[in-house]
Amino acid sequence: MARVLNGADDGVLFAEDGWSLDVIGDEPAREGWAATILALSNGALGVRGAIEERAEASTFLAHAYEQAPIHYHEKLKGFATTSDSRVPVAESLGIDVRIDGEAIDFTQLRSATRRTLDLRAGMLRRETRWSFPDGRLLRIFGERIVPLDGSTLLLRRLRAEFDGEGVVTLHPRLAPAPSGATQSDDPRIGVNLASRGFETEQASDELVVERLPGSGIGVAAVQRSREEDGWLLVATGYAAGRDASQTLVADAGALAGTALTDGFEAATAAQRVLLDTFWAGADLTITGEPRLAATLRANLFHLFASAGRDGRSSAAAKGLTGEGYEGHYFWDTEAFMLPVLSVLAPDIARAMLVYRAGTLEAAFANARALDHKRGALYAWRTIEGRECSAHYPSGSAQYHINAAIAFAIGTYVDATGDEGFLAEHGVRMLVETARIWLALGDWAEGRFHLRGVTGPDEYTALIDDNWYTNRMAQKHLRLAVSAADRVAAIDPEAWGWLAAEMELGAAELAEFTRTADGMHLPYDAARGLDAQDASFLDKPRWDVAGTPASEFPLLLHYHPMTLYRHQVSKQADIVLAMVLGGEEVSAERKRRVFDHYEPITTHDSTLSASTFAILANEVGHEAQALDFFAETSLVDIDDRHGNTGHGVHMAALAGSWLALVWGFAGFRPYGPQLRFRPTRPADWQGYSFGLTWRGTLVRVEVAGDQITYSAVSGPEIVIGHHDTEIRLAAGAHWTGALGC
Amino acid sequence: MARVLNGADDGVLFAEDGWSLDVIGDEPAREGWAATILALSNGALGVRGAIEERAEASTFLAHAYEQAPIHYHEKLKGFATTSDSRVPVAESLGIDVRIDGEAIDFTQLRSATRRTLDLRAGMLRRETRWSFPDGRLLRIFGERIVPLDGSTLLLRRLRAEFDGEGVVTLHPRLAPAPSGATQSDDPRIGVNLASRGFETEQASDELVVERLPGSGIGVAAVQRSREEDGWLLVATGYAAGRDASQTLVADAGALAGTALTDGFEAATAAQRVLLDTFWAGADLTITGEPRLAATLRANLFHLFASAGRDGRSSAAAKGLTGEGYEGHYFWDTEAFMLPVLSVLAPDIARAMLVYRAGTLEAAFANARALDHKRGALYAWRTIEGRECSAHYPSGSAQYHINAAIAFAIGTYVDATGDEGFLAEHGVRMLVETARIWLALGDWAEGRFHLRGVTGPDEYTALIDDNWYTNRMAQKHLRLAVSAADRVAAIDPEAWGWLAAEMELGAAELAEFTRTADGMHLPYDAARGLDAQDASFLDKPRWDVAGTPASEFPLLLHYHPMTLYRHQVSKQADIVLAMVLGGEEVSAERKRRVFDHYEPITTHDSTLSASTFAILANEVGHEAQALDFFAETSLVDIDDRHGNTGHGVHMAALAGSWLALVWGFAGFRPYGPQLRFRPTRPADWQGYSFGLTWRGTLVRVEVAGDQITYSAVSGPEIVIGHHDTEIRLAAGAHWTGALGC
Repeated sequence: MARVLNGADDGVLFAEDGWSLDVIGDEPAREGWAATILALSNGALGVRGAIEERAEASTFLAHAYEQAPIHYHEKLKGFATTSDSRVPVAESLGIDVRIDGEAIDFTQLRSATRRTLDLRAGMLRRETRWSFPDGRLLRIFGERIVPLDGSTLLLRRLRAEFDGEGVVTLHPRLAPAPSGATQSDDPRIGVNLASRGFETEQASDELVVERLPGSGIGVAAVQRSREEDGWLLVATGYAAGRDASQTLVADAGALAGTALTDGFEAATAAQRVLLDTFWAGADLTITGEPRLAATLRANLFHLFASAGRDGRSSAAAKGLTGEGYEGHYFWDTEAFMLPVLSVLAPDIARAMLVYRAGTLEAAFANARALDHKRGALYAWRTIEGRECSAHYPSGSAQYHINAAIAFAIGTYVDATGDEGFLAEHGVRMLVETARIWLALGDWAEGRFHLRGVTGPDEYTALIDDNWYTNRMAQKHLRLAVSAADRVAAIDPEAWGWLAAEMELGAAELAEFTRTADGMHLPYDAARGLDAQDASFLDKPRWDVAGTPASEFPLLLHYHPMTLYRHQVSKQADIVLAMVLGGEEVSAERKRRVFDHYEPITTHDSTLSASTFAILANEVGHEAQALDFFAETSLVDIDDRHGNTGHGVHMAALAGSWLALVWGFAGFRPYGPQLRFRPTRPADWQGYSFGLTWRGTLVRVEVAGDQITYSAVSGPEIVIGHHDTEIRLAAGAHWTGALGC
Repeated sequence: MARVLNGADDGVLFAEDGWSLDVIGDEPAREGWAATILALSNGALGVRGAIEERAEASTFLAHAYEQAPIHYHEKLKGFATTSDSRVPVAESLGIDVRIDGEAIDFTQLRSATRRTLDLRAGMLRRETRWSFPDGRLLRIFGERIVPLDGSTLLLRRLRAEFDGEGVVTLHPRLAPAPSGATQSDDPRIGVNLASRGFETEQASDELVVERLPGSGIGVAAVQRSREEDGWLLVATGYAAGRDASQTLVADAGALAGTALTDGFEAATAAQRVLLDTFWAGADLTITGEPRLAATLRANLFHLFASAGRDGRSSAAAKGLTGEGYEGHYFWDTEAFMLPVLSVLAPDIARAMLVYRAGTLEAAFANARALDHKRGALYAWRTIEGRECSAHYPSGSAQYHINAAIAFAIGTYVDATGDEGFLAEHGVRMLVETARIWLALGDWAEGRFHLRGVTGPDEYTALIDDNWYTNRMAQKHLRLAVSAADRVAAIDPEAWGWLAAEMELGAAELAEFTRTADGMHLPYDAARGLDAQDASFLDKPRWDVAGTPASEFPLLLHYHPMTLYRHQVSKQADIVLAMVLGGEEVSAERKRRVFDHYEPITTHDSTLSASTFAILANEVGHEAQALDFFAETSLVDIDDRHGNTGHGVHMAALAGSWLALVWGFAGFRPYGPQLRFRPTRPADWQGYSFGLTWRGTLVRVEVAGDQITYSAVSGPEIVIGHHDTEIRLAAGAHWTGALGC
């Protein structure tokens, strides 16, 4: 690598072309972080970027998770009874290195490692120089890919060079899964297995069969190797599920065997084709800020790689790059990740929504557990669909997850025009989840109220009329009605059957509309300020600026009740509401919201910065917009929250793209029209990005005070530029002034 | 027993004189209830009323409890880390019965049992007739006492009569403690030990030594027996603590040995003396309602017996009569039990307050855990002093426990004039706990607010400005100031030292007063109604009347969030506030409070009925007052909540006396003046009761429309009768019209 974009020797070094990143060194203190940002995944399998000689707990499967009873000291009615926990599976990376047949004890050697994650090749390359006390040098080279077609396969090749006497040989070996993490006092980790983890049924260097006693999920791992072009080629196939072990072994063995036969070059070529397609749409630049642009590429790479694409999985808070948050799926998958994937990888976005469709039965059960006789309420945190939250004030009380899923359905259909999804899955999901708002809320003095809920901002809990929740519920109810109308128009007969099955009539849809129209959005007239909830503005303000740096994140230093009784936000959700649902709010009101809530927001959630970047830009706070943009972009590359070792922050990675496209380029997810209200920070000379909208690949390039919209391929498209409409056929472009 | 007061054959039968109660039968389904209401205790040792042949888990010691880590699936900062759990100790009641040396298998025999609890003797007598399949009959007779002097001693005597051939012999045997209860989904039981319970160090029929691994508390039990007057006399002595096992064995052995030497009659005579003294003050009658009066006597017996009297223990929610609520002490000890004990057994009341004084250090630690840099906050539930609540919305959020302890100190000092307690313990407790209100609350628009707390009504949680909490905090702050003034006046020099140690100056006391004066008590002017909290009246009302009987208690059938978002009360705490702190509230406001809150109160808490009885009487709802009086009185005798088997409801038992004396007789705990505003329900011909006020034993007798106040012994006293003052010397009485 000829030149790097920054000179730091303890962080990431990007290649000059911005398409690969290097990590130099393998110090234990940084290794958790390094293994996360160098992870490879494909939505089904994730392998952390550890070096083989030291790897442990590096391999995750989307479908390998334990289910264990949640133990409460005081258990109340309706509490979640079991939790899913994604745990590492049989270790794929292990090797023994032998000199004349004798295994090397690497703990006695000094090492120097360079690892390179190639974002276009989807490959991790590594070289480690091991120094013996007597000066001999052993170099180990490796290359690995996890195929982005979604196969549960790790393919890698290894070779060694030795300047001493003796023959060096490499011996890959599978190892049974490590035991799971124990209870952590950091709720951002939170793995707390009652079970003892995997039970091993068979174990050799080439075959591990193991099963989780709680969930009954078995995993087979088969490892095969051969010499190829001077390398040792190693293929590790996995299969996970509740099938019989022999079936799993056969499936895993087939994957490993085929991959071994096809060889490394075939796999890397296929990988390159998939990534070329992705980057054709997703590539972006920031003129004069190449490191930021390269960081955003790395962020998109992880988002794309870790998202589930099989219709039975989604994108966890940490993807498949670590054990954080038990591998659970939350609302931010839909609120942050899906709007990006809907325009950069629509097939994956669809598959993730299909996963939610498949857990609708669990959402019915969850609604019943929370005493709602009708409708569906998605679990706050889950893998298989059941509620896994053991602290309802910041868990099950977050009813807004229903609205986030509705929002994602709407955004996906707006971006793709995929009305087939609406008919097949979406309208049922929208209606059943919308019903919860009616079951939850009540009318008082002509307004509709949602009480005793928690918004995304977990520093406030169990409050009435959370602005975000109410606004998103309002949009959700309207979307359910319009989706029903749309599906009824497309296929009246099928709709008739579906509506009958749902016991849905015109009266209920009218009630949806009446409820949306009556939804209360709290506003403090005396202060001229939208209120985050009914009581928020009454509370004393937390002195965020005067709080010592050592006390952040506040959640690790203060009892939740202390936070709840102050005006203090982990991520002010009213600011998010102004982005996702601010289309009827004036710029002046938004500015007042930003100016009131920003000083009391700690940004202890990595979700916060991107939203603040977007609204800061809208209300004209350019310097803050740039700061927040950097914050969300660099969250993992620079380990800004100190916990990247537990896995990447998927929503923040997605948020960095949102901060660019929704923030500086002024896109908003407010309907089927692609529209931008672009700006350019004075510090930047320009920027560019791409996306796919209703089948048309569009590229947007800002250069100085000009903007160019190009329709690269696909159907003719109408693009809104501020309040102007531009019609472009494939191959055409339009250039004009950036401002309105 | 010649005649009984009711004809039911499946409940309690009272003797005609109202001084003993019989339970006939020993069916398994009723045995939990029977063993509870027939329990004997002395505040240090509790022995359930099981029959020896079937006894298990019947023996409890105030100072034998496990401490185990509380396990959270999601643990947040400041959560309680360990819980105390009082668990049964080595079983004191076991016997083998042998015929010619061969043990009888009682599971093969039919039984008929009569048990009699003698309230004046403090003794349980029993007779069981065991029928063999061949018609032979074995009768077993027993008598037992737990000496009310507080010795950890069970003394009993047993004999057998047999109409068959062979020699029957009785063989008492100790048995090691049973293993603790496992997780229950009923939070009213809630024992959930992580440890395996007692580890046995030594075990024979006459000696058990065992230790709890978590708390390190050891228990020695020594059993000795001899023949006496045709009975087998058995003495079982206990010692519990963190001392060396041999010390415990010596202590337990000395207790058992001395008791065995002294014999049964000596013990029963001493027991009688103690109870004669108690009943001289505590006896009560209800003319025409002998069963109710007898029930109240039984209630007072259990309250008196189960209250801790050693200064290191208090009165648990279930006394020492069962495992419910893990044996924890809560706020109702101070709010319900202590006002009764302060006038019926002032020495015990003092000892219970001394226990709280001894846990002040733990209250400091608890305050710090909840982020308060100054002041003390008593644990919501505890044995040793540390917070044991694992669900803070209905646990640690109940800051009002500080006010309840302050209220009890004030009530105790008012009733006894024991200013020595104030100087020695009380003023420090009052000041340090009052400081929490300043640390917790905030000023807004000239009023002081307490936010994010939970009142006694656990169907509403984490709300702002709970009327009860704010009012009780207001009284607490004023009491702290007046106590400081009083102690400073009595001994200025000692006060100077104490104030310096507390870093307490005049400015802080002035701030207490300013805070009390500014305390916000929410009032809905539009409705003309005091509000239970800032948001309570905005919520939809729960249709209590329309809820099926099978869905009560609601806490077992609805998720807490569902309850929180409705106007529904387990025990409307604003009604309690109108009793404990209603001195500045007009009768008309109280009536509106009663009429609004009563229909939305489920009385799922056994604490509820007594309070409603008192306020119903004050606002003139006599029929409801009588119903609620019956409800609180009969809670355990009639097993009205279906869970007496887990132990008596100590606060409800105390509440039955409060409903009589505060309710019908119109006493209020509003200062050092003894004052009544008596009424008489039309259904009653009269009633009488006694109490001790500032050393004077006073008896009050209502007969028709006349009332007589008698000063039985002690100093001259001034008694308020409505707004009249009556001065009585010992031996004098005053008779006049009941009404004002």
